[in-house]
Amino acid sequence: MSSAIPRNPQLAIHNRQSVITLLTDFGTQDYFVGAMKGVILSANPSAAIVDITHDIPPQDIHAAAFNLLATYRDFPAGSVHVAVVDPGVGSSRRPILVECAEQMFVGPDNGLFSWICEREKRFTARQLTNESFFRHPKSKTFHGRDVFAPVAAALARGVSAEEVGPLIDNLVKLESLTPKRRDDGTLEGCVIHIDRFGNCITNFTTEHLTTASTRSSSLVINDRELTSFREFFAEKPDAAESLFMICGSAGFIEVAAQNESAAAILKIKRGQQVLLRTG
Amino acid sequence: MSSAIPRNPQLAIHNRQSVITLLTDFGTQDYFVGAMKGVILSANPSAAIVDITHDIPPQDIHAAAFNLLATYRDFPAGSVHVAVVDPGVGSSRRPILVECAEQMFVGPDNGLFSWICEREKRFTARQLTNESFFRHPKSKTFHGRDVFAPVAAALARGVSAEEVGPLIDNLVKLESLTPKRRDDGTLEGCVIHIDRFGNCITNFTTEHLTTASTRSSSLVINDRELTSFREFFAEKPDAAESLFMICGSAGFIEVAAQNESAAAILKIKRGQQVLLRTG
Amino acid sequence: MSSAIPRNPQLAIHNRQSVITLLTDFGTQDYFVGAMKGVILSANPSAAIVDITHDIPPQDIHAAAFNLLATYRDFPAGSVHVAVVDPGVGSSRRPILVECAEQMFVGPDNGLFSWICEREKRFTARQLTNESFFRHPKSKTFHGRDVFAPVAAALARGVSAEEVGPLIDNLVKLESLTPKRRDDGTLEGCVIHIDRFGNCITNFTTEHLTTASTRSSSLVINDRELTSFREFFAEKPDAAESLFMICGSAGFIEVAAQNESAAAILKIKRGQQVLLRTG
Repeated sequence: MSSAIPRNPQLAIHNRQSVITLLTDFGTQDYFVGAMKGVILSANPSAAIVDITHDIPPQDIHAAAFNLLATYRDFPAGSVHVAVVDPGVGSSRRPILVECAEQMFVGPDNGLFSWICEREKRFTARQLTNESFFRHPKSKTFHGRDVFAPVAAALARGVSAEEVGPLIDNLVKLESLTPKRRDDGTLEGCVIHIDRFGNCITNFTTEHLTTASTRSSSLVINDRELTSFREFFAEKPDAAESLFMICGSAGFIEVAAQNESAAAILKIKRGQQVLLRTG
Repeated sequence: MSSAIPRNPQLAIHNRQSVITLLTDFGTQDYFVGAMKGVILSANPSAAIVDITHDIPPQDIHAAAFNLLATYRDFPAGSVHVAVVDPGVGSSRRPILVECAEQMFVGPDNGLFSWICEREKRFTARQLTNESFFRHPKSKTFHGRDVFAPVAAALARGVSAEEVGPLIDNLVKLESLTPKRRDDGTLEGCVIHIDRFGNCITNFTTEHLTTASTRSSSLVINDRELTSFREFFAEKPDAAESLFMICGSAGFIEVAAQNESAAAILKIKRGQQVLLRTG
Repeated sequence: MSSAIPRNPQLAIHNRQSVITLLTDFGTQDYFVGAMKGVILSANPSAAIVDITHDIPPQDIHAAAFNLLATYRDFPAGSVHVAVVDPGVGSSRRPILVECAEQMFVGPDNGLFSWICEREKRFTARQLTNESFFRHPKSKTFHGRDVFAPVAAALARGVSAEEVGPLIDNLVKLESLTPKRRDDGTLEGCVIHIDRFGNCITNFTTEHLTTASTRSSSLVINDRELTSFREFFAEKPDAAESLFMICGSAGFIEVAAQNESAAAILKIKRGQQVLLRTG
């Protein structure tokens, strides 16, 4: 492997270790993640493997999509991201490669990468059909190890996208990340993720707030109107208001509560509607 | 260290980072695993360290033995696997190196590697006696850091097996992985592991099923006879049968249930007898 | 980045990957730790990143300080340790670099490194003011990703300490690690940490016990006097005493119980007074 000429110019120029990230719902109690890493290092001995998380709630494609969306831009060009939340493993769902933002994304075609594609707009997708890159034997129950990990290892060492399979379209999509504007100017969005602290991440960003209007915006969720906005969590509240908006580290407006779970206080569920009134 | 001439031909030829895996019951809440990695990188700056898992139930040698058995073959030749589930740390139990399948295994002599030795048949074992490879001072409570990690680091950078200590035999063994055949042809096996989903991994493999007999095999456990066999978890059941057999990703026949814990439904415990009737 | 001439002599001489460790209270469920690693690898493609732990109880600066204290000496010279338990993120608390023991420590100025400074005695501290090493945009809620990770990456690739910011003093300190000696010779210490097994780590070390007096020392906590001392956990007790002292792997005397939680039995809390009577 190490004698192969890298065909990925990004890697050739920098002569650096190639980065492969892993994001799964496998947990860390069993050998599953270790097996993926063994397969990767067997095919690509110089890979730098990074765990994003393996504690995605079982089969929760939305949580996986959000976490990858929140962090892929922090990785160097040429990185390969492997995401495996795969309730349909063994069935006819397609194994895919998505290329966008100078990075590569490998996993099942079930929406995991759709928010990244929506944000980036320009992307290409391929179906992983070239079995010569797969682990042999290939099981019907563990494509993370047998399909996605070895294909990612090959791509990270410079195998070209063309070699792994043909271009495809009509990828499975999650609901859109883009809020809708109503006739009265109100923006209609939703809660795209609830983190383990109970902070509710919406699909509104600071781009939906003009600087002028930050202090005059209000957010309505479950018939409750929030007008308080903080810049950081330890900020002294300007009122006896325990619930507030904050611009979270993933770039979205979050509904948060001082040392409490906003989701619990407001009985918020993922996917739920949120309204934003500005100006 | 980096100026030493590697004596492990595998490493010398490929000029790659050496792989060291860790499997323990230390959890990830304390500094224990970090300390092992610090010791390894101090002795072998180019090591690629892979966590298999640190969430083995405390002192559960069988769970550790199963998880290592399930994944060692996915790692490149020359890998060094460190397994530390070590209730006898500080006592007279021997610290050992096992070499087999072109890989190395380092840990206490308490059966952790016995299933790998049984499967591979050809192996050699040594007692770690050369204290020049140990961390100093050596504690009596943390040999993962003070004995196993630094010896693994030395082996991974090319120190020869002869240098770490003398050949030994009579390793501690767990019960055999091989099912017994009764006079009537029935195979008598056992449950070697129950994973966190409640899937019960038996010591039967597809080699015990001829292709012809897959559909005519039955498995008996706790007076319940299972005849349903699925190729993957999302497969549509051919009957209203919630319990089924499946060939799991570790290569063994598992007893599973659709989105439920087969162990809970059948009240299965590890070590329990299972019968397989074929043809 | 990779074409920069390393200015850290330690790194230049050994030509090895630079070690960066991470210790946080972020948990492993979200993208937070992955984002820090992406930022590090973007700025320093050859970094070897080691997780010490991400399961520090939220905002528990003492637990973070203890775990780092217990393991930093196991890492090679030139390592950069990033610790982020940061209740004051976004406020006026200073982001700092501490250099001591041939290693570097990066994090908020809230006492995280004070026990290391106290032990090592010689150290220098700087405030991280050079924003050219920060991630852009810099959030007000996630300095682990936006300040500490990228500065650590720069330091690990050879950027000199002078470049990251000016020397400062008056670092925030935790209570001292040093026991006090009373007039009657009794040492007055405290419980600095309770681990997940309920072992209570005190600030006494074997230096406070002369070899001669190990067997004649007694430890008083919550009006209970302990006189039993074990060398390792599996040691046969010399009496029907379930509670005992042991020299733990972090170098401190611990109060432990056979397969039980000493903290629970004795109702011990962190910070609580302990007395040691010797001879």
